[in-house]
Amino acid sequence: MESQKSTDGLGLSRRSFLEGLGGFGGSSLLMAGMSALGFGIASAQAAPPTLTGGGGKKVVILGAGVAGMTSAYELSKAGYDVTILEARSFAGGRCQTARKGFTSTELGGETQVCDFDDGLYINHGPWRIPYHHHSTLHYTKEFNIPLEVFVNDNDASYVMFDKGKGPMAGKPVRKGEVAADIRGGAAEILAKSIKQGALDQQMTAADRDHLIAYLVKEGYLNNDLAYKGTDGRGFDIWPGAGVNPGPGVVKPPRPFVDVLNSDTWKTLGSVTNYEQQRTMFQPVGGMDRIAKGFEAQVGKYIRYSTQVKSFRQNDKGVEIAYVDGDGKSGTIKADYCICTIPLSVLRQMDIQVSPKFKAAIGEVSYALVGKIGLQMKRRFWEEDHSIYGGHVYFDDPEILTMSLPSTGWQSKKGVILGYYQFGSQAAKVSALSPGERQALAGRAGERVFPGYADSIEKSFSAAWHRIDHNLGGWAQWTDDGRANAYPTLCEPDGRLYLAGEHLSYITGWQAGGIESAWQQIGKLHARVHAA
Amino acid sequence: MESQKSTDGLGLSRRSFLEGLGGFGGSSLLMAGMSALGFGIASAQAAPPTLTGGGGKKVVILGAGVAGMTSAYELSKAGYDVTILEARSFAGGRCQTARKGFTSTELGGETQVCDFDDGLYINHGPWRIPYHHHSTLHYTKEFNIPLEVFVNDNDASYVMFDKGKGPMAGKPVRKGEVAADIRGGAAEILAKSIKQGALDQQMTAADRDHLIAYLVKEGYLNNDLAYKGTDGRGFDIWPGAGVNPGPGVVKPPRPFVDVLNSDTWKTLGSVTNYEQQRTMFQPVGGMDRIAKGFEAQVGKYIRYSTQVKSFRQNDKGVEIAYVDGDGKSGTIKADYCICTIPLSVLRQMDIQVSPKFKAAIGEVSYALVGKIGLQMKRRFWEEDHSIYGGHVYFDDPEILTMSLPSTGWQSKKGVILGYYQFGSQAAKVSALSPGERQALAGRAGERVFPGYADSIEKSFSAAWHRIDHNLGGWAQWTDDGRANAYPTLCEPDGRLYLAGEHLSYITGWQAGGIESAWQQIGKLHARVHAA
Repeated sequence: MESQKSTDGLGLSRRSFLEGLGGFGGSSLLMAGMSALGFGIASAQAAPPTLTGGGGKKVVILGAGVAGMTSAYELSKAGYDVTILEARSFAGGRCQTARKGFTSTELGGETQVCDFDDGLYINHGPWRIPYHHHSTLHYTKEFNIPLEVFVNDNDASYVMFDKGKGPMAGKPVRKGEVAADIRGGAAEILAKSIKQGALDQQMTAADRDHLIAYLVKEGYLNNDLAYKGTDGRGFDIWPGAGVNPGPGVVKPPRPFVDVLNSDTWKTLGSVTNYEQQRTMFQPVGGMDRIAKGFEAQVGKYIRYSTQVKSFRQNDKGVEIAYVDGDGKSGTIKADYCICTIPLSVLRQMDIQVSPKFKAAIGEVSYALVGKIGLQMKRRFWEEDHSIYGGHVYFDDPEILTMSLPSTGWQSKKGVILGYYQFGSQAAKVSALSPGERQALAGRAGERVFPGYADSIEKSFSAAWHRIDHNLGGWAQWTDDGRANAYPTLCEPDGRLYLAGEHLSYITGWQAGGIESAWQQIGKLHARVHAA
Repeated sequence: MESQKSTDGLGLSRRSFLEGLGGFGGSSLLMAGMSALGFGIASAQAAPPTLTGGGGKKVVILGAGVAGMTSAYELSKAGYDVTILEARSFAGGRCQTARKGFTSTELGGETQVCDFDDGLYINHGPWRIPYHHHSTLHYTKEFNIPLEVFVNDNDASYVMFDKGKGPMAGKPVRKGEVAADIRGGAAEILAKSIKQGALDQQMTAADRDHLIAYLVKEGYLNNDLAYKGTDGRGFDIWPGAGVNPGPGVVKPPRPFVDVLNSDTWKTLGSVTNYEQQRTMFQPVGGMDRIAKGFEAQVGKYIRYSTQVKSFRQNDKGVEIAYVDGDGKSGTIKADYCICTIPLSVLRQMDIQVSPKFKAAIGEVSYALVGKIGLQMKRRFWEEDHSIYGGHVYFDDPEILTMSLPSTGWQSKKGVILGYYQFGSQAAKVSALSPGERQALAGRAGERVFPGYADSIEKSFSAAWHRIDHNLGGWAQWTDDGRANAYPTLCEPDGRLYLAGEHLSYITGWQAGGIESAWQQIGKLHARVHAA
């Protein structure tokens, strides 16, 4: 479910996820559960629960990220008395955008002050909104946040794989050429096999003919069922005016076995997995427009630069001790607490919860994630390569995904995402200084786009596992953790409700935080009204 | 090459085009030809020819469409004395956008005055700019015309095919479900055949294993090489927060034979054909921003509402007789003429050209094309169906392509392209009144989106074959016409140079008009300098 499974160039299987689906309650159980909360299936994901009659009950919310601000926004509208304690001097949690003046100091690292030119930025946290994330889209609509299309797939962009064999290894190859050749070649093999009788026992003659017709269409096969290329691969000389260039000259296909051996087909799938499908969006001007949208509504409830020191509760209420921005200690009491602090941070804190709950908090690991934004002098990927947005896929695990900006088309400069790596590679790269990270990204890009390294003017990098108050990109549940610890944390512990992407199956996405918040405030509200 | 081959739901083969490619001169001939014009291959399509020293030579240009205005813009910068005669009261040719106040009277038809709400429009002429149309993108950049992504493919959108067999006929089906099932099923068949020895004689064991690995990845096959579905098909219950909905419930696949028999796979291809690939653009605010961009530069040279009556030439110059907007006759003399009038119109005019040239003008037919824009009360396709842009494909030839707007995301209303039909169907539909056309589009849409017909507030339709000064959507060359008539028209006849999309292999696209203009003014300029 985590987003790196979808964006990397390695085509990690999603089958383990699919196979896991059978393990949980089916539709009827689900419907019953949702109905018990007083709202239907569709609305559970498309809109917040309808809450009325908060009656001034006090709720303290820990963390002004997307989950915390969602909770505060909906509860305050329903008449609850909410307060948010936020450790940082700004709201948004991981919903951040680095632009001129944005400052970050990773644990043990140098302070980086983003110095991109005006109008340029990198979304170093969440950066994409899938069309089916109704919850995130609910708020972009409610807060009038303009969206633009994020180009999440571009056949004109490159695959840069080193680990395959044969002549394609170590060279940038247009993804569309790979798709045409491998699918065309496979269609040819199957069509000819059918023609030679391979399926005579399994299928009727009519079905076999129909299947061949499909393969001819899919693979651009000729009348002899041979794949000889297609204009979808692009042209050596593009069609144009007059008789020269006239019809142009189509690029010839590569030998099937070369494409097979290159492993570049690992970037393909019959259909894009659901998290990465079109239409994908981004807010115009930066992902933090969403944070600002929430903050405009609930900023008045936020106490910034306020660090939680402890959480206590009894059957009457909760009490949180904190240190504020001036270094002064204080406490705040409330009827309930919604805690959106990442479990990677929460597990180190002094909180009064049951042993089982405490143990469950420790049962999840957090993703090591690194990203770097590179301000480029010139949009050479558009001007010289005709690539407008999309990703360049690497099998070098220190790079994995380079992403070309889906904004500022045809303008002078742009910010490229230079790498998006995970796990041990993210740990390794994050140990480098900001300058060394830039150099590493520059060397990789140079192999795809000559002149890339020299075009880099400035950079801003983030290693989420080294960022205070986050200590990781997102929760990574194991199957065992999902089965045992996760259900415990989805229920309140006394008067404490956890919320955040970590309490969803949409981890690593803002929708997970929002929908978790919706679910938990729904439960809290039902309890208040049952009391 | 014409755009309907690419956009319809019928998946018309492009092989005839590919096979035709061999018939024309290869690269070396091409290179020689281009070099003779003094500019290289790449620049021929990416930038206009560099012209200097026009020396005040007079050029009269017929038609203020994209080709005519390109000619005027580049020639005037080079020091030529240009005049454009334009039959309409506005510039742009087919580059039109219908918004409030836009008026159209088809030949023999009712006058339509577009009454869309402010901010809403339909591009009833050209509506898309492919990433490889360097020439069009050259001017959007030069004139600072902001672009936005046009969503030209959306797996979440529907295929609505009636003509197949089986349970899928006559029902809207998400395109991504079709892609997953047909490709997954075909991958399973091939993988199992290989496992059973079908290719033992043709491939090495290592290659066979590699091919199976590809098929497993492409088709989401399980360990038994069976296709059992994938999350890319979507969910019956989407993943969410907590344990309910938790991981959600993936939609199960359809039986392979049902998908095969439905013919919905005709909307698929291993790779999208080159004209329709991502990244696709549209100007923010309407395609006529391009016309306005040119007009801001060359409007001073345009004589509007001026109808050409005759063209005469001798070895000294050209003379065009016209009637201006006040009904007054006049003539204009010049050294050369560039005529961008569509051949469908030009063939009916009194022009002094050689018999061979005259005959060649008659050798091309023009596309019958109909489009309708429907202003919808509410963006139900986004709100209720989670479809953001892209097309709904019909095998009903009276509809073919319904297209959902790629602008105004999440706003209140929107304009849907209700049909995009060609040929005899376009003729048939164009015989209907505007109201009847709207009703026809409404009935078709209602089958996909319940409530569609009632949501229509206003419409604006165009039948290009019935629009004066165009008489067709674009030139449709036969192979015979390309071989015999087309080369004649690409060369000047005396002092007359033709230009427009009809003199390109990018017919039906603005790039064809621009690149034809670039080529013809390059030839004219070379002649002036050789003289």
